[in-house]
Amino acid sequence: MEVLKQTSNRYELFKKPEFSAVVKVENALLQGVRNYFNKEGFTEVVVPHMTKATGACENINTLFDVNYFGEKSYLVQTGQLYLESLVPTLNKVFCIGPSFRAEPDVDDRHLTEFTLVELEMQCDLNELIERIEKLFMSMISSVKENKKDLNVLGADISKLNDLKPPFKRVTYTEAVETLNKLNFEVSWGDDLKSRHEKALCRHLGNKPFFITHYPEKIKFFNMRTNKEDTKIVNSTDFILPDSGEAVGAAEREYEHSILYQKLKNSTMMQQLEKLGGKIDDFEWYL
Amino acid sequence: MEVLKQTSNRYELFKKPEFSAVVKVENALLQGVRNYFNKEGFTEVVVPHMTKATGACENINTLFDVNYFGEKSYLVQTGQLYLESLVPTLNKVFCIGPSFRAEPDVDDRHLTEFTLVELEMQCDLNELIERIEKLFMSMISSVKENKKDLNVLGADISKLNDLKPPFKRVTYTEAVETLNKLNFEVSWGDDLKSRHEKALCRHLGNKPFFITHYPEKIKFFNMRTNKEDTKIVNSTDFILPDSGEAVGAAEREYEHSILYQKLKNSTMMQQLEKLGGKIDDFEWYL
Repeated sequence: MEVLKQTSNRYELFKKPEFSAVVKVENALLQGVRNYFNKEGFTEVVVPHMTKATGACENINTLFDVNYFGEKSYLVQTGQLYLESLVPTLNKVFCIGPSFRAEPDVDDRHLTEFTLVELEMQCDLNELIERIEKLFMSMISSVKENKKDLNVLGADISKLNDLKPPFKRVTYTEAVETLNKLNFEVSWGDDLKSRHEKALCRHLGNKPFFITHYPEKIKFFNMRTNKEDTKIVNSTDFILPDSGEAVGAAEREYEHSILYQKLKNSTMMQQLEKLGGKIDDFEWYL
Repeated sequence: MEVLKQTSNRYELFKKPEFSAVVKVENALLQGVRNYFNKEGFTEVVVPHMTKATGACENINTLFDVNYFGEKSYLVQTGQLYLESLVPTLNKVFCIGPSFRAEPDVDDRHLTEFTLVELEMQCDLNELIERIEKLFMSMISSVKENKKDLNVLGADISKLNDLKPPFKRVTYTEAVETLNKLNFEVSWGDDLKSRHEKALCRHLGNKPFFITHYPEKIKFFNMRTNKEDTKIVNSTDFILPDSGEAVGAAEREYEHSILYQKLKNSTMMQQLEKLGGKIDDFEWYL
């Protein structure tokens, strides 16, 4: 919102109708999230926010340090491992919480903390994708009730009305091929950047879509390897027009010996060892 | 829960029925909170979790430090000042979030992070107390639906059925007098400790109760001074049997010049200045 960016005085900022509208739309989105999870029998879990390395997403170097009574602790990036540990007893769980990223300011989407919604349950990639679609549509339908605030923000409500799942699915391999045809220099195994996702989205008609089956080596260690092609994992990213990646999801590996090997060989583990951490930090999870 | 404390292995811990029951009861309590606020037209606000000194409760020395790209930032203790800033435009607001306290381990209730529910709106102390009662009863009624989990935890459900507002109210001055009669050495102006609250609770029939009108100098700088007795503020703490203080609340001072003076003379400001901070950190709030 340009009008909010241009308001440097924080007291003035709080009084802007655009600011209240952002707060109310955010509130509506989170209500949509909870409506879906409550209807589907999920339990909301409060996860810890100061953690060891088990609170990290892929990149341990982007954790914020906290001085925890003289010892180093980190601000959580994901409650995923905590949620997973509760799946055997509670079946369907979710958490909504701050996720902290100590990343340098690279683009307009940059935030050092943001609200991350995470769910865990036993299911395959296909069901996971369908659940993401339903969760997303529950958020859209909740936010559509706030017409007044959407208008204050200049949102195009007709675009929201046009959203109808199922959304398109492309594999990572197909995505790379398409990008090459569109003259992007990207090779199989590269991480897809925001500009790649945007180009793909335009190519697919400017609607939300899923990219599935990413290379194992660029994804989190616990994602389940595909049985037919062991170079890829059963994962998906959900991409929105304009804003880009909105969801990352995957089947989890649950066999202890495979999980241990995957963690041991992960980029994350190499980073952790460089920082003086060790695999024991993950013992309770494994 | 003794059974949980005795379980040192975290993987074993996650599998205990008591652990799932705690998660589900916590979930039910938070659902009770949101039910009340949604029914009453409050907007939930996501507040920042890494802040300057404006995220502190009374005691700045209990803030956790975060290394924010080489600068010192703090983990939030209260979203109060952020909520207050939204009252002029959104009227009724609340937040639910982690509150972090870098306090040494003094008793069984000690937590370095916990879930804090906060509300802000324009109202007087009397309405505030009635709202706390209704919010509390909404949590109780939500948690009572989880009979199975309460039984796993050995909770006495009949005690929950006995809870009926309005709850008793005593002023801080009356509380000190009562404590003196009960042979506690406490003088007017002292902070009440957990053992004092417990003794008062037993004395009042082991039901929840309110202590009101605390001395100004032991409370947060923005609490409104009582018109008839300027040594006290229009504040209240809500005390529960066994667990003690569950809520702290107060009318807010809204006149700029008074607020500025109160902040300047506060213990918090003295602490902040010792740490190299200054009143400018609060400029956006004032």
